[in-house]
Amino acid sequence: MNLVLLFNDDFINADQAILKDRRKDHIVAIHQAQVGDCLTVGLLNGKVGKAIIEAIDRDIVSLSVTLDSNPPPSLLLTLVVALPRPNMLKRILQTCATMGVKKIIFIGTSRVEKSFWQSPQLQPQKIEENLLLGLEQGKDTVMPEVILQPNFRQFITEELQGLCLNTQNFIAHPHNAIPCPRNTTEKTTLLIGPEGGFLEKEVSTFNELGFTNIHLGERILRVETAVSVLLGKLF
Amino acid sequence: MNLVLLFNDDFINADQAILKDRRKDHIVAIHQAQVGDCLTVGLLNGKVGKAIIEAIDRDIVSLSVTLDSNPPPSLLLTLVVALPRPNMLKRILQTCATMGVKKIIFIGTSRVEKSFWQSPQLQPQKIEENLLLGLEQGKDTVMPEVILQPNFRQFITEELQGLCLNTQNFIAHPHNAIPCPRNTTEKTTLLIGPEGGFLEKEVSTFNELGFTNIHLGERILRVETAVSVLLGKLF
Repeated sequence: MNLVLLFNDDFINADQAILKDRRKDHIVAIHQAQVGDCLTVGLLNGKVGKAIIEAIDRDIVSLSVTLDSNPPPSLLLTLVVALPRPNMLKRILQTCATMGVKKIIFIGTSRVEKSFWQSPQLQPQKIEENLLLGLEQGKDTVMPEVILQPNFRQFITEELQGLCLNTQNFIAHPHNAIPCPRNTTEKTTLLIGPEGGFLEKEVSTFNELGFTNIHLGERILRVETAVSVLLGKLF
Repeated sequence: MNLVLLFNDDFINADQAILKDRRKDHIVAIHQAQVGDCLTVGLLNGKVGKAIIEAIDRDIVSLSVTLDSNPPPSLLLTLVVALPRPNMLKRILQTCATMGVKKIIFIGTSRVEKSFWQSPQLQPQKIEENLLLGLEQGKDTVMPEVILQPNFRQFITEELQGLCLNTQNFIAHPHNAIPCPRNTTEKTTLLIGPEGGFLEKEVSTFNELGFTNIHLGERILRVETAVSVLLGKLF
């Protein structure tokens, strides 16, 4: 927790907040903080700043809060990922939130196992928990938007064209591909397939809509590694 | 398993191999392969090629093997990482093997929890298991070397100088740092700290030995994400 994320409900007045939940436990047990210590904090979807610990007791930590800076800039990216297995989903959500992705769409493709859509990890509360962990890691406050779209056909016909207007559009797919571009500053839509990849006919559909295949070399990466490496190279 | 890794012991003659273990199970259950199917295979520390499935029964899969290509090129990198917590260690080992790192040194630093050195994940057999999974993912055959060095002082005085001769030397550390270089082709030694980072005095020691601080922007990444992003940017 490199930043303690605060919610409006934590505030008892304009600059005082009271924490009672896992954040209190973390500050006491992991940070081993003392009264008078200064913490990096941020308001959900708001500014970042500092908080002085005014009191610690068994049930609460009381903070005096000053919020005066903007959170780090976001990535100009919409990330579309074939729904991965639940454990990997958790880490991808955290990584995306940490790295500044603000729109993530999980889609169904032929090779996405239908059972993945039943995972408890897809409950809104679980998704939010992982995004919060990611934001706290990356010292960000701005909650990403996560969309679930199990229906591939519906995604293509109703949603994709709206997304990829005025962006550069890439699909991570090793065949007929250019090397992953580096250090881009353009608004980007990036598609990442499931373990085993997109079907060639799925790739053709994306290509017809203007998506360019990009590759990361001969080696096939796990989806969660591919997310990190692609974001690292592209931005 | 994008490549089935074969060992010399699997071969009953120059081009026939018999598999009995998890690889047999994986070929049957996950690949759902049939007699006559063709698999991508490689010999540990040797060539890659193809295998035709000649027979499948309850206990074995029999393969006719042709090995005729080189594995993908390795990264010109020695990676030094402060020993992470065991679950993260597993994933870092897999990622490194997948991405082509061939020398990985885990070291002790002030912020490495002593208990991590007692983890069963550090047993040679466990390390090898994770490296094999990573190689199979990345379609590589060349087993990385993994060195464990709990003693920071001994690492600095006896080992580091030998490692960083004739390489470009970087330490992932956000203060007084240049942005992570991109697309380098030089031989590199890269140091990555623990959760919470290196101490400033540890960083000074590395700086005196010629290591340059590099950063990945304002956001603080988890160690396993940092590994993937740094390798993605550097190579």
